[in-house]
Amino acid sequence: MILGKVVGTVWATRKDEELVGAKLLIVKHVDLNYKVKDAFVVAVDTVQAGVGDVVLIATGSSARQTAATKNKPVDAVIMAVVDKLDVAD
Amino acid sequence: MILGKVVGTVWATRKDEELVGAKLLIVKHVDLNYKVKDAFVVAVDTVQAGVGDVVLIATGSSARQTAATKNKPVDAVIMAVVDKLDVAD
Amino acid sequence: MILGKVVGTVWATRKDEELVGAKLLIVKHVDLNYKVKDAFVVAVDTVQAGVGDVVLIATGSSARQTAATKNKPVDAVIMAVVDKLDVAD
Amino acid sequence: MILGKVVGTVWATRKDEELVGAKLLIVKHVDLNYKVKDAFVVAVDTVQAGVGDVVLIATGSSARQTAATKNKPVDAVIMAVVDKLDVAD
Amino acid sequence: MILGKVVGTVWATRKDEELVGAKLLIVKHVDLNYKVKDAFVVAVDTVQAGVGDVVLIATGSSARQTAATKNKPVDAVIMAVVDKLDVAD
Repeated sequence: MILGKVVGTVWATRKDEELVGAKLLIVKHVDLNYKVKDAFVVAVDTVQAGVGDVVLIATGSSARQTAATKNKPVDAVIMAVVDKLDVAD
Repeated sequence: MILGKVVGTVWATRKDEELVGAKLLIVKHVDLNYKVKDAFVVAVDTVQAGVGDVVLIATGSSARQTAATKNKPVDAVIMAVVDKLDVAD
Repeated sequence: MILGKVVGTVWATRKDEELVGAKLLIVKHVDLNYKVKDAFVVAVDTVQAGVGDVVLIATGSSARQTAATKNKPVDAVIMAVVDKLDVAD
Repeated sequence: MILGKVVGTVWATRKDEELVGAKLLIVKHVDLNYKVKDAFVVAVDTVQAGVGDVVLIATGSSARQTAATKNKPVDAVIMAVVDKLDVAD
Repeated sequence: MILGKVVGTVWATRKDEELVGAKLLIVKHVDLNYKVKDAFVVAVDTVQAGVGDVVLIATGSSARQTAATKNKPVDAVIMAVVDKLDVAD
C-alpha cells in the first residue's frame, strides 16, 4: 500500500454512474517522516478520511475489494487512516 | 486515479474488434495546478470528454468496470470530468 | 494504453506452451511526435502489426482480453495500429 | 516480486473491517547487496516477518492469493522471508 | 513483458505454503543489446531457465496464468527463454 496524506478533494459532476456519491480525495505520497512529495493520486475514501490525515491506499484491482468500491471503475482506495508509524533506527 | 487533461485523439482503423466505436483520447498528466506534464496515456472515453477537459483516469482491470469497456483489451478509461479541485494550502 | 513503435521481434523456442504461435514484438515507447524513447516492452501482436508501425499496447490483465491471449501468461498486447494522432496545439 | 527489508510497523485503528488483525509492515526496497533504498511499500505480513528481515513482496491482485489476504483491499503481501541470495559474479 | 537476464537465485525456507518447490530467480532488466541494468525482479521460473539466460517475464495477474503459478501469491513469472532478438536498424 502507498502511504499518503490527504490534501484535498476532487469535484466531478459528469462521471460514471457507479461513482455517484463516491468521495474522491487527493492524496500526496509521503515519506516515513510524513514529508509530502510531489507525486499524488486521486483515491476513493471508504474510511471517513479528511484533509490532513495520513492514510494507506490500495491500488489496482485491490481497490475494488471494499463494499463501497466493488465492481466500480476505481483503481485507488483509502482503506486505513494511520495513527502512527514505528520505524526502527 | 490519474489526474489528466485531454489533448487529442488517436485514430486507428486496424484494431481489436471489441474496440470498434471506442473513442481513444490522449491524456497528459497534470499537477494540482493543472500544469501539463510530458507523461501521457491513451484512454477510452466513457463520459463524453473533449479536448481541454481535466479528467480522471482509472487504469488496469479497473478500466474495464464500465459498460463501454467490459471485457475489452483496454487498460485506461476516462471515468470522470473534473469540475474543480479543492486543495488545502 | 501505451503509444509505441514496433522495432523488432523476439525469438523464443523454449516457452510456456500457451505461447506457441504467438508473435512477440519489441515495442519502444514514443512521444506524441513519434520520437522513439529508450523504454520498451515486449508485446504479443494481435493485429498483424509489423516493424515501423505505431501501435497501442494494453497491459496487465487487460492484455488477456483478446481471443489470442485469453488465459495466457502475457501482460502486454498490441491491440491497435495507429493511423494518426490529432493533438491540439 | 520485490526484494525488501522490514523497517517498521504501521498502526491504524480506523480501517476497512477486512483488515482487522492484519499486521501492516513497512518494507524498504533493497538492492542485491541488501543495501536499503528510499523507496518503500506497506505490506501485509503472512509469514511472521519482523524488523530486519529481508523479504519478498508480491503486489497487485497476487497479494490477495494468500489465506490471510483473500478478497481484502490489500495490494502488497510479504509471502517469503529470504535466507540468502546466490548472485553470479 | 520485461526482457531480462537471470543473475541468481533466492533461497527462502519460510514462505507461503503455495510456494514450496517454486524456483525463485533474480532477473535483471536488460536493454536491446543485452546490457544489464540495475533494476531487477524476483520471478518464479516455469521454463527451466538458468543463470545467464535471457528471458521474458510476465507480471501482475498474468504471472499466475501458468500451471505452476495458478492461484499463487506470485507477481512475476519467467515464461520464455529468448533465443535472439531481431531489431531493426
